[in-house]
Amino acid sequence: MEPVEIRYLADESSDGPAILVGGLPGIGQVGKVAVDHILNELEAEKVAEIHSVYFPPQVVSRPDGTCRLVSNEVWRYRSPTSTYLFLIGDCQSVSPEGHYALAECYLDCAERYGVKRVFTLGGYGVGHLVDDPRVLSTVTHPHLRTVVEEAGGSFEPEEPGSGIIGAAGLIIALGGRRGMEGICLMGETSGYLIDPKSAAAVLRVFCRLTDLGISRDRLQGRAEDMEQALEQVREFERVRQNDELSYIG
Amino acid sequence: MEPVEIRYLADESSDGPAILVGGLPGIGQVGKVAVDHILNELEAEKVAEIHSVYFPPQVVSRPDGTCRLVSNEVWRYRSPTSTYLFLIGDCQSVSPEGHYALAECYLDCAERYGVKRVFTLGGYGVGHLVDDPRVLSTVTHPHLRTVVEEAGGSFEPEEPGSGIIGAAGLIIALGGRRGMEGICLMGETSGYLIDPKSAAAVLRVFCRLTDLGISRDRLQGRAEDMEQALEQVREFERVRQNDELSYIG
Amino acid sequence: MEPVEIRYLADESSDGPAILVGGLPGIGQVGKVAVDHILNELEAEKVAEIHSVYFPPQVVSRPDGTCRLVSNEVWRYRSPTSTYLFLIGDCQSVSPEGHYALAECYLDCAERYGVKRVFTLGGYGVGHLVDDPRVLSTVTHPHLRTVVEEAGGSFEPEEPGSGIIGAAGLIIALGGRRGMEGICLMGETSGYLIDPKSAAAVLRVFCRLTDLGISRDRLQGRAEDMEQALEQVREFERVRQNDELSYIG
Amino acid sequence: MEPVEIRYLADESSDGPAILVGGLPGIGQVGKVAVDHILNELEAEKVAEIHSVYFPPQVVSRPDGTCRLVSNEVWRYRSPTSTYLFLIGDCQSVSPEGHYALAECYLDCAERYGVKRVFTLGGYGVGHLVDDPRVLSTVTHPHLRTVVEEAGGSFEPEEPGSGIIGAAGLIIALGGRRGMEGICLMGETSGYLIDPKSAAAVLRVFCRLTDLGISRDRLQGRAEDMEQALEQVREFERVRQNDELSYIG
Repeated sequence: MEPVEIRYLADESSDGPAILVGGLPGIGQVGKVAVDHILNELEAEKVAEIHSVYFPPQVVSRPDGTCRLVSNEVWRYRSPTSTYLFLIGDCQSVSPEGHYALAECYLDCAERYGVKRVFTLGGYGVGHLVDDPRVLSTVTHPHLRTVVEEAGGSFEPEEPGSGIIGAAGLIIALGGRRGMEGICLMGETSGYLIDPKSAAAVLRVFCRLTDLGISRDRLQGRAEDMEQALEQVREFERVRQNDELSYIG
Repeated sequence: MEPVEIRYLADESSDGPAILVGGLPGIGQVGKVAVDHILNELEAEKVAEIHSVYFPPQVVSRPDGTCRLVSNEVWRYRSPTSTYLFLIGDCQSVSPEGHYALAECYLDCAERYGVKRVFTLGGYGVGHLVDDPRVLSTVTHPHLRTVVEEAGGSFEPEEPGSGIIGAAGLIIALGGRRGMEGICLMGETSGYLIDPKSAAAVLRVFCRLTDLGISRDRLQGRAEDMEQALEQVREFERVRQNDELSYIG
Repeated sequence: MEPVEIRYLADESSDGPAILVGGLPGIGQVGKVAVDHILNELEAEKVAEIHSVYFPPQVVSRPDGTCRLVSNEVWRYRSPTSTYLFLIGDCQSVSPEGHYALAECYLDCAERYGVKRVFTLGGYGVGHLVDDPRVLSTVTHPHLRTVVEEAGGSFEPEEPGSGIIGAAGLIIALGGRRGMEGICLMGETSGYLIDPKSAAAVLRVFCRLTDLGISRDRLQGRAEDMEQALEQVREFERVRQNDELSYIG
Repeated sequence: MEPVEIRYLADESSDGPAILVGGLPGIGQVGKVAVDHILNELEAEKVAEIHSVYFPPQVVSRPDGTCRLVSNEVWRYRSPTSTYLFLIGDCQSVSPEGHYALAECYLDCAERYGVKRVFTLGGYGVGHLVDDPRVLSTVTHPHLRTVVEEAGGSFEPEEPGSGIIGAAGLIIALGGRRGMEGICLMGETSGYLIDPKSAAAVLRVFCRLTDLGISRDRLQGRAEDMEQALEQVREFERVRQNDELSYIG
């Protein structure tokens, strides 16, 4: 097995400008939930499968009882004006070297389809529950900033202070070295749980930047379920706190 | 020394269909105990020895005072209808890259003997003592599911939720890419101790899937010894709990 | 992407003896703060950019909302008598192998410019606040000791007891193997916070060893701001301690 | 820089049978202290120096204020009947792969001098203070067991249960694959502190197995100093324990 293996399952044709959209697992699973949701709403086809020794040595079970090696995948969708390539999957690299090698692999695939613009969707962990998550952004070219701001993305020079770690930032930065425009959209998230609310916020900004009219209904339904679960947690904490106070008192 | 070294100690002949059975160290040592037990009951011959820089830098002592480098081994046994290759040994890889390289090595060996079906035996950690361990399973091909269920294996779509990490899953998944059928049998185990009871449960399912009539008597004796030890632990915990209760009371 | 990539942005000319000065991130950010300060005071030009898979998989945001891959850089400044090459940047390696590979890369760059002497500036963590930080030193050649002592550097045979870990020591030691003279200057620092006072102490010794007349005013201003912040911490601790004492009393 | 570099400083001549003796840093520094002591007592010459990217990225200070890259070294001593090669130095590998690569390097060096027997000296951590440390042993060939037992070494089939991790075991096991006889002598040690008493015990067994008449006086002096330091620790603990008891009482 090669360190990074990509297997193409379809031709490399694309209609109109080609756009890569990455949504890999990460904090709050924000990017993964957003892109998984898009693929549930669209009729896309799988065009590539990626395996790597930099992925964890892991298999995942399918509902029919079979298993498969962890992998990432690229799915293609042709909108009226563009061709979208969605990068989704099970994992990021477990080592720094692997992160670089895999990002280059994703970009090789993007070049095959003539991609000129790359989006990466992800989460930005703030360590506390967020009622109305902002979508923090970073881009590869200054002129993209206005475009993203008009779509509702925020740029906070002080955040994220320590840089963006992982595939979302790396893919657009390495893509920039190949001449691709890159936009990274990160929804604020507590990071404690899967966060569909943050994913919906990211998706709203993302859709305004493309011609994809993705309904967020199902995602918002999932966000509401998660909110109810969280509300129960909060209620439980309030009760326990009161009990403790009355005990002390 | 090469990253992974396999030394063959015998010809590559096999009679009837060849079957690989992996039982490497892991949680509760379930797979290792099961396959070590099989080899104690059969007259098998060692056919290959594997060393690797991905193994820990470790030697193990033999009863005669000598030591040897940690290694994994392959043993061959010819049943009336099939040839079995048992993969046993001291360790799994210490790095993700090593896991992939070693799994490929085991499968190279399997191909040499014309293996068409691969079993891997292991444990599935649940974090609490289990009275009657189920044998959770995953397979490479849908038609194997019925076969395994009829032999007493379980398929729980929700378990193991986070995937199966390590050699047991990796070997069958990478074997599937080479066209081999794969069955992974994982006995539920607390994971706290060596678990011969879980190994016996795995063995029962395994034997029904093969023509190997392995007595589990000795294994069950060992499981009973372990149960007695555990019973003492439980008794001790009960006493202590009562003491605490009466103290509080 | 190559494991270590250096991209040269200018010719390799140098006037007079060439000198490499390394100030990479590290304990108390002492070396980084010192060399960043020098570059703020001088008109230097960027001559090389280094990327590496041994760096963390990270991007950093710029004030204009764009981001860039983490990197280290080399800047050139021609003083009346010498040519200085300043090595600064975002990070050190995340693995031992990477540390060695990157140090060799920095020295390849130094050789290109004919460097004969290498300085590395850094911190020496002592785990407590230091009022008047010494500048502990180590050198590659015995005759350099007197030179450094005359400039105010200290040599304590017992310190640092466990050796110097990271780029500052490695660069001069590997440079010594290439025939370059090396001087490592480490300002004592608590290691708790960015430490401009320690950086100023290092800079004072460093400037006496070169013909660079760098004003330390701005650095000392920054050190005073930090002192005020620290004073508030100390005051807070005194108050709390008194409270605790009166409670016990 | 190559992953592992050995630089030879002398010809490869040896008189009589050649013997490699390894004493690298490790638990209680037992092996290092023992071999450092031997070299203090003998007139040996340095014949090789080893650097490696698998060593920590570290330099160590010399008393004259200069520093050097961490390294291991081989020193040669010709006794009336044999040639000894002593392997000493600053470190072991930081990764499993490095451990294997370095052990092969040491053995390449041994082969250059025609070594037929390898000793490795080290510690065996027991986690509590030991009054009269045994010297636990393991060998590559069964006939060596009697030889070692007659010299005072112990063989405990149950110890060390989890195998011997690190260079001491690896060197003799990999040497065995090259046809060299190997003897590993491990002094019991608490592992808390540098343990010259354990080193002296190892040395006593080692000397009986060679024609080296090494005085252990200085080593025992050092052990007594350490004992006094330990006695103060014990006394302090007794006092504190009594205080606590009287407080409870």
